[in-house]
Amino acid sequence: MLQSDDAGGRIPNPVVERLSVYSRVLMAMLRDGENMASSTGLAERTGFSAVQIRRDLTFLGQLGTRGIGYDIRPLHARLEQILGVDVERRVAIVGAGNLGSALTGYTGFREHNFRIVAAFDIEPDRVGVTTQAGVEIHHLDDLGAVAAKENVEIAVLAVPVAGAQSAADVVVRAGIRAILNFAPTVLAVPPGVRLRNVDLSVEMEALSFYLAQRS
Amino acid sequence: MLQSDDAGGRIPNPVVERLSVYSRVLMAMLRDGENMASSTGLAERTGFSAVQIRRDLTFLGQLGTRGIGYDIRPLHARLEQILGVDVERRVAIVGAGNLGSALTGYTGFREHNFRIVAAFDIEPDRVGVTTQAGVEIHHLDDLGAVAAKENVEIAVLAVPVAGAQSAADVVVRAGIRAILNFAPTVLAVPPGVRLRNVDLSVEMEALSFYLAQRS
Repeated sequence: MLQSDDAGGRIPNPVVERLSVYSRVLMAMLRDGENMASSTGLAERTGFSAVQIRRDLTFLGQLGTRGIGYDIRPLHARLEQILGVDVERRVAIVGAGNLGSALTGYTGFREHNFRIVAAFDIEPDRVGVTTQAGVEIHHLDDLGAVAAKENVEIAVLAVPVAGAQSAADVVVRAGIRAILNFAPTVLAVPPGVRLRNVDLSVEMEALSFYLAQRS
Repeated sequence: MLQSDDAGGRIPNPVVERLSVYSRVLMAMLRDGENMASSTGLAERTGFSAVQIRRDLTFLGQLGTRGIGYDIRPLHARLEQILGVDVERRVAIVGAGNLGSALTGYTGFREHNFRIVAAFDIEPDRVGVTTQAGVEIHHLDDLGAVAAKENVEIAVLAVPVAGAQSAADVVVRAGIRAILNFAPTVLAVPPGVRLRNVDLSVEMEALSFYLAQRS
């Protein structure tokens, strides 16, 4: 999703998002037994232009050969390295209501090397429970201790709007430097902490745009 | 989120996603009592370049004045019209497990004129229940009848991977032309049906990218 936060490195945000898409497409091509990819072929599979794709991939260094294309395996490996998913990233879910519980079992995370190691809540009837996906729900007060023990690097906020800022503050105090926020509200975090907001209504607007064009 | 599906109209997909972002920023500026926006000011608030913003907004026609900027109110109204959210869009949630139940109460949808009018499931203990957010759960077999009666335009698929394609088939047979899919799998839909896939691991990779850059 498009974001207003500052770039974390020398690669601009929109490029990083496209690199994720290329990584998925290349993985699918590997599964299909393919070894080489052309920018034209990648354009067909992603909807981005071949020019855009070639430009984006120059951020990774010289990996393609003119007239031949890209060797998929090293390109995919380099993308995973750049995206930081060549190593497992340990994740805590903050808020174990319907959304948080669903996220503890989201297979899309596990497939991309994100491992949910703990969940947190403040409701007495949730704390101590293990979610369907086998993740234990701790009290939010224990986040600092559990996050340190479990080497949590990313926190996913799945809490109501009213509790989102105070939950973010707890996460920041625990030394976690990356936050994915699902609450539809603007959160303040100090410099050095990366915040991404998931706004599902942006996804919906791409559909309503389509409906409006057709009517 | 970046998508591989074909453009639904003359405005390219990435532009549509940025229009959603501009719409949100302009709404916030209106709430703050501002009346005029410059492309530089929008650039600061969105992270996109002023050049990009001016180019994107030309898709809406000539709404800005050189050296003065954009009159926020008509620009925001035009964006809502283009994005098809100047009218209410009626939405069905397919799959009323943790994720689907959470989505029936997602305030971010309601704020942007998306109204969840029904949910569907096949589990006997869910059918007939009303979610916390007050949405009735019907049997999936009744989707065609309920969707017609309730004028559903958009279906959100929040079902397990194993049931995603058959759920999509039911939605398509009901005449619904826009689908937001949360199941991390590739679905086939006929031409004329717009499918968007939400891949939450792409959001996570923007965070792991940041962590990898810093380490």
